Amino acid sequence: MSHAAETLDGWYSLHLFYAVDWASWRLVPQAEREQMLAEFEGLLTELKGAKEAGEGDHVAYNVAGQKADILLWFLRPEMKDLTSIETAINKLPIADHFIPTYSYVSVVELSNYLAGQSNEDPYENPHVRARLYPQLPETDYICFYPMNKRRNETYNWYMLSMEERKKLMYDHGMIGRKYAGKIKQFITGSVGFDDFEWGVTLFSDDVLQFKKIVYEMRFDETTARYGEFGSFFIGNKLDSETLHTMMALPEK
Amino acid sequence: MSHAAETLDGWYSLHLFYAVDWASWRLVPQAEREQMLAEFEGLLTELKGAKEAGEGDHVAYNVAGQKADILLWFLRPEMKDLTSIETAINKLPIADHFIPTYSYVSVVELSNYLAGQSNEDPYENPHVRARLYPQLPETDYICFYPMNKRRNETYNWYMLSMEERKKLMYDHGMIGRKYAGKIKQFITGSVGFDDFEWGVTLFSDDVLQFKKIVYEMRFDETTARYGEFGSFFIGNKLDSETLHTMMALPEK
Amino acid sequence: MSHAAETLDGWYSLHLFYAVDWASWRLVPQAEREQMLAEFEGLLTELKGAKEAGEGDHVAYNVAGQKADILLWFLRPEMKDLTSIETAINKLPIADHFIPTYSYVSVVELSNYLAGQSNEDPYENPHVRARLYPQLPETDYICFYPMNKRRNETYNWYMLSMEERKKLMYDHGMIGRKYAGKIKQFITGSVGFDDFEWGVTLFSDDVLQFKKIVYEMRFDETTARYGEFGSFFIGNKLDSETLHTMMALPEK
Amino acid sequence: MSHAAETLDGWYSLHLFYAVDWASWRLVPQAEREQMLAEFEGLLTELKGAKEAGEGDHVAYNVAGQKADILLWFLRPEMKDLTSIETAINKLPIADHFIPTYSYVSVVELSNYLAGQSNEDPYENPHVRARLYPQLPETDYICFYPMNKRRNETYNWYMLSMEERKKLMYDHGMIGRKYAGKIKQFITGSVGFDDFEWGVTLFSDDVLQFKKIVYEMRFDETTARYGEFGSFFIGNKLDSETLHTMMALPEK
Amino acid sequence: MSHAAETLDGWYSLHLFYAVDWASWRLVPQAEREQMLAEFEGLLTELKGAKEAGEGDHVAYNVAGQKADILLWFLRPEMKDLTSIETAINKLPIADHFIPTYSYVSVVELSNYLAGQSNEDPYENPHVRARLYPQLPETDYICFYPMNKRRNETYNWYMLSMEERKKLMYDHGMIGRKYAGKIKQFITGSVGFDDFEWGVTLFSDDVLQFKKIVYEMRFDETTARYGEFGSFFIGNKLDSETLHTMMALPEK
Repeated sequence: MSHAAETLDGWYSLHLFYAVDWASWRLVPQAEREQMLAEFEGLLTELKGAKEAGEGDHVAYNVAGQKADILLWFLRPEMKDLTSIETAINKLPIADHFIPTYSYVSVVELSNYLAGQSNEDPYENPHVRARLYPQLPETDYICFYPMNKRRNETYNWYMLSMEERKKLMYDHGMIGRKYAGKIKQFITGSVGFDDFEWGVTLFSDDVLQFKKIVYEMRFDETTARYGEFGSFFIGNKLDSETLHTMMALPEK
Repeated sequence: MSHAAETLDGWYSLHLFYAVDWASWRLVPQAEREQMLAEFEGLLTELKGAKEAGEGDHVAYNVAGQKADILLWFLRPEMKDLTSIETAINKLPIADHFIPTYSYVSVVELSNYLAGQSNEDPYENPHVRARLYPQLPETDYICFYPMNKRRNETYNWYMLSMEERKKLMYDHGMIGRKYAGKIKQFITGSVGFDDFEWGVTLFSDDVLQFKKIVYEMRFDETTARYGEFGSFFIGNKLDSETLHTMMALPEK
Repeated sequence: MSHAAETLDGWYSLHLFYAVDWASWRLVPQAEREQMLAEFEGLLTELKGAKEAGEGDHVAYNVAGQKADILLWFLRPEMKDLTSIETAINKLPIADHFIPTYSYVSVVELSNYLAGQSNEDPYENPHVRARLYPQLPETDYICFYPMNKRRNETYNWYMLSMEERKKLMYDHGMIGRKYAGKIKQFITGSVGFDDFEWGVTLFSDDVLQFKKIVYEMRFDETTARYGEFGSFFIGNKLDSETLHTMMALPEK
Repeated sequence: MSHAAETLDGWYSLHLFYAVDWASWRLVPQAEREQMLAEFEGLLTELKGAKEAGEGDHVAYNVAGQKADILLWFLRPEMKDLTSIETAINKLPIADHFIPTYSYVSVVELSNYLAGQSNEDPYENPHVRARLYPQLPETDYICFYPMNKRRNETYNWYMLSMEERKKLMYDHGMIGRKYAGKIKQFITGSVGFDDFEWGVTLFSDDVLQFKKIVYEMRFDETTARYGEFGSFFIGNKLDSETLHTMMALPEK
Repeated sequence: MSHAAETLDGWYSLHLFYAVDWASWRLVPQAEREQMLAEFEGLLTELKGAKEAGEGDHVAYNVAGQKADILLWFLRPEMKDLTSIETAINKLPIADHFIPTYSYVSVVELSNYLAGQSNEDPYENPHVRARLYPQLPETDYICFYPMNKRRNETYNWYMLSMEERKKLMYDHGMIGRKYAGKIKQFITGSVGFDDFEWGVTLFSDDVLQFKKIVYEMRFDETTARYGEFGSFFIGNKLDSETLHTMMALPEK
């Protein structure tokens, strides 16, 4: 029997981060800028068709600070669908003014640490399915960060017994539950896919809740001893109107 | 009861660092440079309106060395206000000659480590409010650096008891008090928002005081064992006159 | 007698990663783009001649995320053949629109940890030869990552006895075997050639198997205590048709 | 009483490193290149006025290898003087062909570890003044590197008692004395100013002495256990003649 | 008496790595490319004069992978000679199409760990002289990497006694001897000169020998516990013919 907790895996996931190249964007005549923006929105609308078909979803956010301006998060049934979407964006004329700054490749994942015992096929359980193939929230704010479990000399997550890990994850999950109703959390697994082991994507209408949950969890042994973090990205919602406002330039 | 000290959170905070692209700036005719500078100053003046309205503040400094030329630090009631300000700066024609070099996203934070017990709502306490929603000083020099508390194998801040952390933070705070009158210090929390856990922004008319306080604190156990630092940025005040002097080019 | 396990070494190996510079690619008239693509395909076809001659092989994949767009993996009898191939690609007009993002220099390697004792020359064994001078699979997906064995203060792979390493590698290999039929694995040694000690290249029609094997192995002591990883790259197959689809731009 | 050794602080210090952009320099007609060079030399000569006035000094060196071509080291009474000098250089037309590659912000520092006890104000002691407000040597070679004292789990400089540090620094200083007459050493403190805690600038007519002293000190416990180093930069003297030789291009 | 082993120091050393900017190279008309190449070769031929005069040497290699295309390794009696050579290369018109990617500054070094006791001046010993002021081999392949001796908390090379280090270096050297006739090894010291403590340059007609020696040494305690490595660079010989082949572009 394997030491690894079995995971349930849903849609493949691609986070794409772009900074706007404002200097070159300013050189584009207004009519052309509007045309480019319309094409970009047209692609996003077309891709939203997957949501209706139950074959994926995506969201767009405006990232705070200089790490990026735009975050696009896509979910799809096949990883090659995601590569195609990335290429389709890159082929848009507006992409001449988007500078890629970061990306993350993963898959929606449910760990079995907290699973009960049953003979049921979890992939048939509607609650499980709703989490593996989710409809993404449309909250005011998003938070994304990649993370690892540490393999240090004294504290090595992967040398702990299944029981120890289960206990630690249970306590960890209890903190998460306190934020139910305030934060929606999505875990995507990226072992073998990208440079960290998991991506965490949080949604909330109150951006301060991201700080509260991540800070509170930092004192939890699972994170305090074993958590290792990449960059944190925070953004506010980009809908059609805010995208237009963001990209609009004053008339000369 | 949680192990995490509750924090009080005030205005959201965005530090923006830009290097001037002098080579392209030199290509701009003088009249146009003055126009661009006037628009930049116009935006800063407009944004200063928030101070009068009690809805934020900002300062501008000229950064020493090649990490950046300009530091702009903004405080606002909502994080999306900060993203809008950043975008507004990026849309200025002068931004064609600003190269983004670093940014920091956080929120003004007061820790409760030193708090007394009371039934009072701290957000109603005028002393607390003055610190959560501060009017920023106009000192000659600024110092900014981000920091973490270490989670090493032997010395792990987040595995200490609340009492141990309280004791360490008390001693740490005692050093800070010795610099009262010489340095004004602002702590902004960034757990979940940016790549370090806190940002520290110091103001003083005597730049040497920054070195003295940071050096003295390094021997304090809180810092010696648990402090981890990012880059340090130092700058001198940019008011309208020094901004013009800084950006002015000799006539050809 | 040396502590090092003897290795068997086959073809030299070069992984080349390129991002497409879509902004400059868009500037190229369509007829010229098709011409460039035809030349690129012409070179790949010519280089495929080596496979027929039993003197190497190569594959092409479309990399997910912003680390790269194209992965080309070449095997050849001499390392200088690989440098020549890299130069030949760089000399193609299409390479003006390829941005090099990563590369890996190594040699196909079989470790002797699992070898039986015999007087046979392993280089004459047809099973060994098939693994040292392989024909590469044409699966839907590829996964590449470089890795080291750790030399930490407590857990130092290179201070273990041959017996301990043999035992650990045996257990490690047992996990790999469970994925026989689902994943084809190639180990290339790069000690003295590139910045990590080994490269791992996995092939599968089911991209999720990469996550499963890498995650399961992470709990194996060999990896948990001693494994250290570089970046992970995932891609889907580029044949002539998908390459054309990928590089095609909409008519204006 | 504080654990920190008091320091004496003199002139503020700015090390500026630039690579020459030879490709763009070659595009400048010779007469214009000479004009630009004359302006650069004019500024350096003007800035040398500070030396006569006892208000600072500077040196220029030609850096070996690709980290930079030119090192300029400036000392001034106020930090904002240094920011102004940096801006003045950036405004020169020749700066279009200088690529900033590194900089270091610090202040000339004498530690009190080796100080005797006296009631004298050290800032009035002429020997101390000569070291805090130094006239820089004009040796053939320079060496610069930034450094920290380690705060590891077992060996943490900042948790040592003052007596232990005094003892270690005394032994350390004894090695330095052996190089008196061969090397002139300047320590600048940068805690709170830049990313390391100190900068070390060495001058010698014999470049090999830099290797000898740094290597010998590496076996000294202060360095062996507690020293942590940034990049090392080595250069040979740039006077007016060698600057002209360095920047001159062959006639076409 | 010092803990540091005395070293013998010979010629100064500069490794220069350049990537070819193929996109801009392709823009140069063929006649001009040939002219540029002839000037580059002319400079290399002129610099080869030092070899005849016994005042240095140099070699040129074609680097595998994307770290660089060209490695030039120069040896000279004075460090400023090397800076001059670097500047002379940068001034060549062909250098517009060379992108500097790495460099290493050091000095040919013989350690005294293995030295016998004698009253002889080692700098007069012809065997020593041949190693301090070497004529470089013209093998098919080169390997270069920089390295440090670790100063970890438990295993700290610089806190070992001279006897322990001598013993470890003796065993280490024994492995090296097994490769006599297959590999020629040059150690250059860079403590105080560049970011690692030593550079290692290996020459062989069989590139696989580099992997064999570096792998075998990794199990040797000197390396296993104390070795720390930078990037590894591998290249095949560039003589006049292969340089022309490498730089030649197909006629349009």
